[in-house]
Amino acid sequence: MSNMFCDRLAAAILEKRSHVVVGLDPNYSLLPREITESWGSDAPSTEATCEAYRRFIFPLLEVLTEEAVAVKIQAAFFEALGWEGMRLFEEAVGEAQRLGYLVIADAKRGDIGNTAEAYARAHLDVMGADALTVNPYFGTDGMEPFLQRTRNQGKGLFVLVKTSNPSSSDLQDLVLGDGRLVYEAVGDLVQHWARESRGGRGWSAVGAVVGGTHPSQARQLRQRIPEVPFLIPGYGAQGATASDLQGLFGTDRVGAVVNSARAILYAHRTSEKPWLDAAREEAAAMRRALWEVSGGG
Amino acid sequence: MSNMFCDRLAAAILEKRSHVVVGLDPNYSLLPREITESWGSDAPSTEATCEAYRRFIFPLLEVLTEEAVAVKIQAAFFEALGWEGMRLFEEAVGEAQRLGYLVIADAKRGDIGNTAEAYARAHLDVMGADALTVNPYFGTDGMEPFLQRTRNQGKGLFVLVKTSNPSSSDLQDLVLGDGRLVYEAVGDLVQHWARESRGGRGWSAVGAVVGGTHPSQARQLRQRIPEVPFLIPGYGAQGATASDLQGLFGTDRVGAVVNSARAILYAHRTSEKPWLDAAREEAAAMRRALWEVSGGG
Repeated sequence: MSNMFCDRLAAAILEKRSHVVVGLDPNYSLLPREITESWGSDAPSTEATCEAYRRFIFPLLEVLTEEAVAVKIQAAFFEALGWEGMRLFEEAVGEAQRLGYLVIADAKRGDIGNTAEAYARAHLDVMGADALTVNPYFGTDGMEPFLQRTRNQGKGLFVLVKTSNPSSSDLQDLVLGDGRLVYEAVGDLVQHWARESRGGRGWSAVGAVVGGTHPSQARQLRQRIPEVPFLIPGYGAQGATASDLQGLFGTDRVGAVVNSARAILYAHRTSEKPWLDAAREEAAAMRRALWEVSGGG
Repeated sequence: MSNMFCDRLAAAILEKRSHVVVGLDPNYSLLPREITESWGSDAPSTEATCEAYRRFIFPLLEVLTEEAVAVKIQAAFFEALGWEGMRLFEEAVGEAQRLGYLVIADAKRGDIGNTAEAYARAHLDVMGADALTVNPYFGTDGMEPFLQRTRNQGKGLFVLVKTSNPSSSDLQDLVLGDGRLVYEAVGDLVQHWARESRGGRGWSAVGAVVGGTHPSQARQLRQRIPEVPFLIPGYGAQGATASDLQGLFGTDRVGAVVNSARAILYAHRTSEKPWLDAAREEAAAMRRALWEVSGGG
């Protein structure tokens, strides 16, 4: 098998018949009572919060291996615990990989020159994620250290194009003089950046973040940048459904993966089942729903 | 004195007669030989690299207190050392504040909703920086957790508007249908975000990152968003000079601060002086040159 990220992702999708990415967005106040009962409902010390997250994340990863192809680890929630949180972030990357997941570091980094190089090294080399979310605001030279790793190290990127939040329109939907919207112009840049890291199926290791909360814009982008795989946030708690995503997966079904965090992680809050069962059932239902709509091209 | 970041910054500028921000961009291969000789010229273990950075940064901070108003700590170079690097990052924030500097965490974070809240908490509450650089791509709702802290906690922001790198034109210089450039539209958003955190002099705690390598665009932005203070990178090693920056400081001289990293940190590489003297002399020369041009409005 090719070592390219896009090929590794495609193989995982087809093997598991799954487009599910589990978003690890740990939030102490939403954890199962079985985990927090040693410390109480208010957030305890940093050390204890890290330990609670560990007792939550690691068993969860164990039970989702058949349902999810990848884990998207949200750096912000670990950074908010300071360096001890970042140590746990590194542990979580390693544990998820050990269990066979592809790991997407959701850190939305971006900078210039040697600073961009340092971010690429941090997340893709040192912490060792398989892919990283990247902010495009700096343009091509800021992308280069990240792009190098898609060509030479089998890494993947997902560049922010159209984000899932309501205010994404403030900047991303502005209309350019040539008629394009800003996010379409960013999409065109991503397609350009993607040209040197194409895998065996024609997809690139350089992907795009496209919010599932904007289904018609997402379908237009699918046509516009046909070699760029999508990482789609906004499923579940943010409101996107499987049918909203029809048409985004490409004819070979591997052109998109879909992230859900809260709906899976905190499924126990609306279920009678034990928390791990609730999470697995939610992920399984999402997997089946997406597999079905992905067959429609 | 007001607790607002803009007022604290203005007071520091006028007291020290300085616009100098020292950028902490540690790079092992450029450190003084006195520091690296215990380990040799190749980068040693993470632990040893952190120790070398500590022996470099802390004495440097001690000798620059009269020359620099603020320290801009570049998160990427610490993240590239993993969690041990982030521990050093936190130490550096605390040490710089102990010595009386304002601390700008240069992390260029940005995300949506509760993720943006986690980044704001991480950098402004937990690690405790006075200000943070932020990426505007997500729009208003992604800014809100950061903006709250300018209103309620005396914190500052510098939002990326026009960055100093050549490829900043890829996205930032695209022309909108209404004739504005993308970075001008972002500047207008920043001015809007700034309206609720004005300090005593009329400046806002919400600032803008405007590259000194684009002097004419920077002057136009100065007119366009007159209450928004600038953090200007690109001085020194990246090519901007003091005279390029004339007109960016406002009539009261406190509307901009200027970052220099490599030219100060690694001044020993082009000097016969001991490394701390070389750094202090470089910062002092920068301070005097900027103080002079800042008098011109």
